Amino acid sequence: MIVVKTGGSRGINLDYVLEDIARQTEPLVLVHGASDELNQISEQLGKPPRMVTSPSGYTSRVTDPETLDIFTMVYCGKRNTRIVEKLQQLGVNAVGLSGVDGRLLEGRRKPNIRIVEDGRTKILRDDYTGRIEKANVSLLTTLLDQGYLPVVSPPAISYEGEVINVDGDRAAAVIADALGAARLVILSNTPGFLEDADDESTLIPRISRDGIDEAIATHARDRMKKKLLGAKEALEVGVGQVILGDGRIPEPVTAALRGSGTVIG
Amino acid sequence: MIVVKTGGSRGINLDYVLEDIARQTEPLVLVHGASDELNQISEQLGKPPRMVTSPSGYTSRVTDPETLDIFTMVYCGKRNTRIVEKLQQLGVNAVGLSGVDGRLLEGRRKPNIRIVEDGRTKILRDDYTGRIEKANVSLLTTLLDQGYLPVVSPPAISYEGEVINVDGDRAAAVIADALGAARLVILSNTPGFLEDADDESTLIPRISRDGIDEAIATHARDRMKKKLLGAKEALEVGVGQVILGDGRIPEPVTAALRGSGTVIG
Repeated sequence: MIVVKTGGSRGINLDYVLEDIARQTEPLVLVHGASDELNQISEQLGKPPRMVTSPSGYTSRVTDPETLDIFTMVYCGKRNTRIVEKLQQLGVNAVGLSGVDGRLLEGRRKPNIRIVEDGRTKILRDDYTGRIEKANVSLLTTLLDQGYLPVVSPPAISYEGEVINVDGDRAAAVIADALGAARLVILSNTPGFLEDADDESTLIPRISRDGIDEAIATHARDRMKKKLLGAKEALEVGVGQVILGDGRIPEPVTAALRGSGTVIG
Repeated sequence: MIVVKTGGSRGINLDYVLEDIARQTEPLVLVHGASDELNQISEQLGKPPRMVTSPSGYTSRVTDPETLDIFTMVYCGKRNTRIVEKLQQLGVNAVGLSGVDGRLLEGRRKPNIRIVEDGRTKILRDDYTGRIEKANVSLLTTLLDQGYLPVVSPPAISYEGEVINVDGDRAAAVIADALGAARLVILSNTPGFLEDADDESTLIPRISRDGIDEAIATHARDRMKKKLLGAKEALEVGVGQVILGDGRIPEPVTAALRGSGTVIG
């Protein structure tokens, strides 16, 4: 079993990713993002994204109910449907799901979020952001047993049944854990984990389990920090290997599975 | 087995519909529309809906690729996710699907559509409208067997694997047929089939199979014509009864199943 997460950032070649997904023979679950397109459509709808920073330095998107609707429109509506369409054209019997379907991705809503703005700590209310705590994968195993390829998108659902905006990398890690996947491939618009984020020649090909904390602390930018944290959590719960691969190149999944990019674990 | 279709027109009380769905004890598939909201979001995105009329007098929405993306955003993204959320809050383990997932709703794309504009017949190209010809319900039966309630939205998929805009009532009829459903309930923003579309006191409580053609020919407005055509097709392929019910009232499904509205068949 493999879980592949493909990001939604500019530069990732989704056609390459999906063509390569269609080539895989092992059972596979695809998790996707759509962050770049979300920003575009939000602007078009007159509701530009508002990013905030937590006291510990992580950035995240403010998600009021209207933003959440735009989120599901772009992720579950446009992007997920187009991915399933493309996979169907490639002969793969794909089924699109969000974390809300069958309570696939369940977690805790953080109704009050502490943010730092203009140097001061504030509380943000009416926000629908959360953190995935478990994957109810019986829906996935039911579909996999019948030969379908699940294509999973955030959002998730809270224990109280509310739609919540969650991190896609963590969604993939929690699913990989719950399915007992041997490998988790996370594709983004870089060759992998870079010592210097601006210099692609500084790719670090391998990080041991013991070295992740140091990598998080010393090198990484924000988005990469989150990816490393996700990798760390996945390894902790039993995923064999996490590979940060390049989503811009042909056959990106195959390349990652052969050890290109950054192999963690 | 019951199939319920709820329209997306103004006036339908979706909370009433979903609360009543949660009360049903028979296995059930819900099919939904979102036409009113689609028009709103299309306007917001600067792409107002363009309706055209066929030579035989039916109106339909022009669906270029951009319109199709807005369609999936509203139907599969916003509306479907909110319906699944609400059902989950009501304790129903719902799973949202479009006709593209697992090729659930398959049909023929009409790449060239004949329309009448300014009194002249024209050909419209680059359109992604189609007609559902079959439902591959193995995905639905798999989910129903596991206790999930499927929530199905257009679009469908063409034999060539393209996403196509299709009629929601027909989607419900084809699913009801393929599942061998005893009854198909179609909820809209009227009490049922009205002799005079502007006068709700002219409800026709019952139409026999033999009387449908006459009703289509003599009484109905455009949208109601389509509903009657859908009902006729459903009855022809073996659905026992089609009920046109009022989606604005409390317990709309229960009321329809008890014979309120217009019972056809």
